[in-house]
Formats: sequence, structure tokens, C-alpha cells
Amino acid sequence: MNKKQVALMMYAASEYDSNLYYAVKFSVPDPFPYFRIGGKSIILMSDLELGRSQKQAKVDEVLSYSDIQAKTKAWGVEKPGVADVAAYFLKSKKAPKILVPDNFNVGLADALRKRGISVESKPDPFFEERVYKSKEEVRMITQSLRHTEAAIHKLENLLRASRIAGKKISYRGQWVTSEWLKKVLNVSMMENNCMGSHTIVASGDQGCDPHNEGTGLVWANQSLIVDVFPRSGDTFYYADITRTFVKGKASAALKAQYEAVKAAQEKGIRMVAPGVNGKDVHGAIREDMESKGYRTERRNGTMVGFFHGTGHGLGLDVHEPPRVNASEHILKKGEVVTVEPGLYYPGVGAVRIEDLLVVTPTGYQNLTVYPKKLEIA
Amino acid sequence: MNKKQVALMMYAASEYDSNLYYAVKFSVPDPFPYFRIGGKSIILMSDLELGRSQKQAKVDEVLSYSDIQAKTKAWGVEKPGVADVAAYFLKSKKAPKILVPDNFNVGLADALRKRGISVESKPDPFFEERVYKSKEEVRMITQSLRHTEAAIHKLENLLRASRIAGKKISYRGQWVTSEWLKKVLNVSMMENNCMGSHTIVASGDQGCDPHNEGTGLVWANQSLIVDVFPRSGDTFYYADITRTFVKGKASAALKAQYEAVKAAQEKGIRMVAPGVNGKDVHGAIREDMESKGYRTERRNGTMVGFFHGTGHGLGLDVHEPPRVNASEHILKKGEVVTVEPGLYYPGVGAVRIEDLLVVTPTGYQNLTVYPKKLEIA
Repeated sequence: MNKKQVALMMYAASEYDSNLYYAVKFSVPDPFPYFRIGGKSIILMSDLELGRSQKQAKVDEVLSYSDIQAKTKAWGVEKPGVADVAAYFLKSKKAPKILVPDNFNVGLADALRKRGISVESKPDPFFEERVYKSKEEVRMITQSLRHTEAAIHKLENLLRASRIAGKKISYRGQWVTSEWLKKVLNVSMMENNCMGSHTIVASGDQGCDPHNEGTGLVWANQSLIVDVFPRSGDTFYYADITRTFVKGKASAALKAQYEAVKAAQEKGIRMVAPGVNGKDVHGAIREDMESKGYRTERRNGTMVGFFHGTGHGLGLDVHEPPRVNASEHILKKGEVVTVEPGLYYPGVGAVRIEDLLVVTPTGYQNLTVYPKKLEIA
Repeated sequence: MNKKQVALMMYAASEYDSNLYYAVKFSVPDPFPYFRIGGKSIILMSDLELGRSQKQAKVDEVLSYSDIQAKTKAWGVEKPGVADVAAYFLKSKKAPKILVPDNFNVGLADALRKRGISVESKPDPFFEERVYKSKEEVRMITQSLRHTEAAIHKLENLLRASRIAGKKISYRGQWVTSEWLKKVLNVSMMENNCMGSHTIVASGDQGCDPHNEGTGLVWANQSLIVDVFPRSGDTFYYADITRTFVKGKASAALKAQYEAVKAAQEKGIRMVAPGVNGKDVHGAIREDMESKGYRTERRNGTMVGFFHGTGHGLGLDVHEPPRVNASEHILKKGEVVTVEPGLYYPGVGAVRIEDLLVVTPTGYQNLTVYPKKLEIA
């Protein structure tokens, strides 16, 4: 965004809002105002955050919110709230027109409008450059991914060391459950300051709901979806990977389904390059699986087959632009995207395989190194 | 909110938006539309989430987003986006006026307005009843708190078993750092599916920036702020507790400062009851410490003394209404609030002590059981 004339504003907690974190590289758990006026970035910080932000925030100027609030009061507002303070500040800077992210609070936007500020919103990517990852960003994403792969390795080792007892699986005398395996993953990642949230370990037909986290016993000889996407507490960058396992022996149908997803995924991955339309990658994957008889349709009110997108951008958000799905998107150098087709058929099982790629000048680099192997003996 | 006439709308990912999670009791990592029309709650779900939401969401009706999208198309919109689909749906339900939370996306609000929907926003608490915790909610908060206290207990045990070597602290031959102690806390909490984020372990003057997470060596005979506020991955309810420790011997000045905070905190806690103004609790705490000579002021551009609020509501958000600070708020039964005064003087050290209370019909119950003791031998 190189329009120096338009002022930008955000108001959020940079710990949770990734556009704001991207702009200030500094994590604050409570909302604060950010401005970019005439190319200069300015934040107004509470007394509580003033010292820390002066040292850490990557902005041109850190001002005391309470100082500006006092000036707003002197200007004639008796009890100045955020909208008063921001409107006063923007007017004092002769910047009565602002561009805000789509997810800017409507309450604050309307209050600013009432105070004579013109507010327009811009859909993500608010900062276009956020889509194109620098080498350093790719390094941080890869680091989160390695910690995630290490956690999956622990899970795989636990399953390998487990014993099958009828339909169940036991490890050191305890029945293996989704909750237990999620803990193994999340604790392992936390040892590397990566926070897993909504980690998925879904056995059998549970995995056919792609966002079902999984609960209860993990079944032998059935599909196990392991989808893990932690955020690093050090860098704030995410990783995302999915593997599908079977402890024991997969049915012939499940094996074939796995091979179909794996082949389609690898076909899709090989297509990734600058100038390629994401829609074509998605279409090729879908058609490849369809050509083998894997239909996508609604059965008894529930979707079966391949009924989600192929992938998504990833960085400071786990899901961010671009999307790789049925909509048009020309891939560009520096984009980091997942390629994660799946097939879901209750009764047979669920398969999803997800790798994380960066688009390079001539093609792609697969950041994921974890092997793809269905059965664990 | 009992105005059955006004339709409500939210559009967010319920995994991150606590108002929406409160309304549907169901975690989804991508945004979806929620409506309450004529007292009936309705969500429009993607194919990806349809099966799971039909089973798990606590709403009156789950509809397929793609079905409504198809109807919107039939209605004459070529490529219906969320605003088109939501506007079509609201008009089809004869609900052209909606109330949304303050943090509703301005981009979507403006797009709805362009499509003839009247959008008004309401500041938090969007659902007033969210402020008043049920017994079950207090139970879930207390459970998160117990897991947090267990983690602090591990940290304290580690410090007790450590040896002082000059200014540093060593445990089993390794220098003790903030990063290490944060890992001890976060891993311990993750074993109970509680996710610590921005956990604070700040030694010496680092603690004088109240939100400084702490980095590097933990110093002997200096203050150590330990502030931990995880979210449970099981219940989504937070806990929040702060303790201040010294490994070794505190200076006389630091000891006095600790006793002043502890006495003021306990005085504030004893005031908590329905009908009491939070402003008075905050004022009493501040005055109690001021009467002992602890002044709050800016020195060399940095605040010292007690320069934050006394406390905040807690539940599905770590900071939620009400605030206990210089603004007026009459405490009410069922509110869960922290009481966490602090004193920060670079050169002497930082002290903050935080308990979590629920307001009962006649006073308060302190949910926190962790002892308050400064020195660890």
C-alpha cells in the first residue's frame, strides 16, 4: 500500500489482530489505536504499555494515549472515549479520511463518522505485502512446521509402540484416545513454544467431519486424521500439516482412497508456480479423484467426497489470503499456501493429506518434510 | 437482551469471537453468519462445517450456506458474497434491521447497508447475561484456575530446588531463565489442555513494565512477576492469577512494597459485594498504598507506582466487562473479576498480586487458593 495520501487506521489488540501485529511487530493484549499518516506510523499507548512499546514497537512514533486524551478534553470533549481521541488526533494531523481493515469495529467506525471522519474499509489483504513472505518469514513458518512435525513424530512413535486389542489400541496398559494423542501433540509443541489450538486427532467416521477435533477411543484398522496448526509464541507465525494414519491394517477401500488423495495432492503440488491459477490446481485435484470414482455429493444431508477447498494462505493467520479453491487466484512468488485435498466417506473413512508450500520464482518449494505413509504396524 | 423484535447478527469465527461462541457453544475456525430473528437462533454453515454444526451447535436451526447462496443467485445476484447472502436472508425473513456487536466487521456492515439493511451496533456486553456467570461457568473458570495454580506450584518448586550462584540462579546445572520458567508453566497447563499465551515471568526491572513477558536470566534476590492467564481448550474459559516471588532474600524496600500491595489487595477484596462501586474499590486500594508513600507518577517518561486498573471481568475472554478501575461500575452478583493491584519502581522492583473473585449475593468468594508468600528460600 503505497498511497501516502490516504491515512490508515487500525484499532485492535496486536496479540490477536495479525494486520496490526504485522504493522507494529509488537504484541499487546488490549486494543490500541494505530495510524499511518503521510507515510509515518504512530501508535497511542496506555500508561500501562507506554514503556514497553517505546522499546519494542516497530513504529515511527509512540505517543501517550492519556496525553492525547487530555488534549481532546481541552478541545471541549468532557469524557473523551476512543472515538473522540482518534477523531481529535486525525483532525489535528489534517487527516480526516481514513482507510481501515474490513474487520475494523463497526461501532468505532460509526462513532468516527459521527465526529466528521470519513471511514472506508479495505478487504484483506489490508497490507498487500503481507501475502508475499520474505525469506525470514518463510524461515519462521518452517521453524513452526518443524516443531509440528516433531510432535507428529511423537504421536506416530506412540502408535507404533501401541498394541491392538480387538478394535481398540492400548499403550502401556491404557486405551489410546483422541484426547490423549492431542495432549501428546500439544505438549510436545508447547515445549517449543508453539501453541496448538483446535488440534485434530479424529478416528474413523469422526474424521469425515473435517473440523471434528476427535473425542474418545482411537480405533484400530481405521483412518486417523491428524491435523495440527500451531502458532509460535516466539514468532507468531503458524504452521499447518495433516497426515492420515491407520494403526494396524487399512481396508482395501481405505487404502485406495488414501492413494487417490496422495496422487491428487502430489499432482496439485507439481502444478504450483507463479502465474498458475489456483482454481486450476483445485480443479485438477478434484478431477483426478473424480476420474477414479470419488464423487462429491450430499448424502442424507451430509457432504461426502472432496467438499472443501484445496488450500489457503498461511502466515500470521492460520487462514489468510490467498485461497486455493474454486475461485480465481493467480499464484505469485512468495505466497505460502497449503495443498490439502481430502476424501471423506462414512463407513470407509477419512483421508486428508496436507503440505505447506512456498511459491518460488520458478515453481514451488515444499516446506513439509514429514513422510506420507498410511499404515503403522 | 429480550427485545424479540430486533434481529441480531454476528459474523465471526466462534473459535476466536467469544460473543458468538457464547451464543452457539460450538467452535468453528472460520467466520460464519449467525442470526437471531424473532427469538430464534439460526446459523448458515459451509458444507465443510454442516455435519458437525448440526450435531453440536446450540442453536434452533442450522442451514446450509450454499443453499441460501443458491437462492440469492436465483434472486438475481450473479456471484453472491456474504453480504448478498445475509441481506437476502434477512429480507426473506422480513428482518431488515439488525443489531450487531461493536466489533462486527465494518466492511460487512457497510456492504449490508448498501443492500438496504439497517445496521446498528451495541458495545460489549452484547449479551448482558454473559457478564453474570452461572454456577457451571464459575466451575469451569475455577477448573482453569486450578490447572494454572498447579503450574505455578511447579515453578515455585523448581525455584525452591534451585541454587543461588552470585546474582544468578541455577537448577540442575542450568541457569534459570524467564523462557525456561514460562515453558514450565505452559507445558504444565497444556497437560491439562489449558493454553497459556503471553505468560509473564519477568525478573527485576523487567517486571516494571507490567506486560513485559520477561526474557533472559532470572535474578536472585530480585522480584519475579508470574502472571498466568490460560484459556481452557475444553471449556474455552480463562483463568488469571499473578504472584510475585523472590528467590533468595528481598531487600527491605521490596519487602515493604510487597506488604503494601498485599494489604491493599486484601482490603480491596474485602470490599467486593453487590452494590459496591468498582471505582471505590480501586480508589481504596490506590489510597491505601499512597498513604504509605507509594506515589504514582511519570518519571523520565515512564510510569511508576500503581498505573493500571484494579481488575477486569473474565470468562470467555481474558479481559471482558466489567472493569474495576477509575470508572463507575456497580458490582453485581455473578460477576467474576480480578483484583490485581501492583507497584512498580525500577531499582526496587515490581510487585503484583492477583486473585480471581466471584461476586456472591452477600459479598464475594475468592476462587484463588494459591498462597501469597514473597520469598522462596
